[in-house]
Amino acid sequence: MNSPELTVYTYDWLPEFPRGFVRDFRVRWAAEEVGRPYHIATVPSHPRSDAHRAMQPFAQVPMITDGDLTLFESGAIVLHLAEGSPLLPAAKRSEVTQWVIAALNSVEPRIGSWMTAQLAKSMPQIFGPPAPAELEAHLMTGMQGRLSALEGLMADREWITDDFSAADILLVDVLRPAQNEGALEGFPALTAYVERATARPAFQRAMKDHMAHWAAADAARQSSN
Amino acid sequence: MNSPELTVYTYDWLPEFPRGFVRDFRVRWAAEEVGRPYHIATVPSHPRSDAHRAMQPFAQVPMITDGDLTLFESGAIVLHLAEGSPLLPAAKRSEVTQWVIAALNSVEPRIGSWMTAQLAKSMPQIFGPPAPAELEAHLMTGMQGRLSALEGLMADREWITDDFSAADILLVDVLRPAQNEGALEGFPALTAYVERATARPAFQRAMKDHMAHWAAADAARQSSN
Repeated sequence: MNSPELTVYTYDWLPEFPRGFVRDFRVRWAAEEVGRPYHIATVPSHPRSDAHRAMQPFAQVPMITDGDLTLFESGAIVLHLAEGSPLLPAAKRSEVTQWVIAALNSVEPRIGSWMTAQLAKSMPQIFGPPAPAELEAHLMTGMQGRLSALEGLMADREWITDDFSAADILLVDVLRPAQNEGALEGFPALTAYVERATARPAFQRAMKDHMAHWAAADAARQSSN
Repeated sequence: MNSPELTVYTYDWLPEFPRGFVRDFRVRWAAEEVGRPYHIATVPSHPRSDAHRAMQPFAQVPMITDGDLTLFESGAIVLHLAEGSPLLPAAKRSEVTQWVIAALNSVEPRIGSWMTAQLAKSMPQIFGPPAPAELEAHLMTGMQGRLSALEGLMADREWITDDFSAADILLVDVLRPAQNEGALEGFPALTAYVERATARPAFQRAMKDHMAHWAAADAARQSSN
């Protein structure tokens, strides 16, 4: 049986700093893990288009079309692609979903608040006014509380549930920006977990294609200038 | 067929300000919508216990036990209880999951960051150092962007997908604290949406039981003093 055609939407171009971390990457990674070929389509990053808002009300990426279905939210797309695959075993559906949502609701917002405070120092025009030192310290404490809890769990686990699953894609991709900012220093089990996941061939293929997309976007801009 | 016994865990006691908004409420609401009876069990709110951390690594509530299954994260629990019910129609699984995750990852963190800045003004010992005015304004703009997008969608919808679903439980419960802080003024479609949802008999029963729990907890504390 042929699967319907899968298209993943991302931005037409972005500056260097978010590359490697744009959330279309999560979808590419999941597609590689389950062996689903896909096309890439783009929407303008600046300014956002009405066609984009019609697919994604918050004008974010990624979105997919999978046959007749249009879907947004990286977590929901990864769960959708995982259906019927070892990324979402039927007997583990609730547990895998628990960790997908934990990554997105209990971990990512804490990392995101601290990251925003970091990035606002050099890019306030994008990330808003920097937080005062006392508030920044409070945000770091909040993030580290979640990282410490995860460190305890991962000390004796290979993956967050028994086998590699959709939950690891989300949780590792939520941890990667923190690692990139040095926030996983002092968390050796989490560092090893991220390294284990990012060494997977599916991760490597997805990252190569993700970065090639931005290189091609640069080339297209230069040739049109 | 009898369902296995369902137990919902919440705190033994909390002060007045979070009552009505503690996340065990989401689980109670979903259980009422699908007609699942449940027991309440409690964990100490202060200090948190090791038994609690063993069930919920971040020492939050709610958790459930449903027969042999232990589960945390309100979004995952609501999706679990919704399985096989009209709250999660098989043909709409991906779309409902998309909106559950949008509520928890694209909407709740923006509302939460602004709410924290509000609550920090009067309760910095709980919510951390207040944000300076310029940062607070930035957080409000971020929240209002998401609310505006939702307002546009809800202007011509009764529920976020075709029929009332698990996604409405999460999205409405994410919006309720914002409404309580006056942040839905100027968003008439969202205000009407929250009022429509909170008028449901299942919501009303769940809220009555949720508030009765805290009243009983007050009485138990007083009689033990």
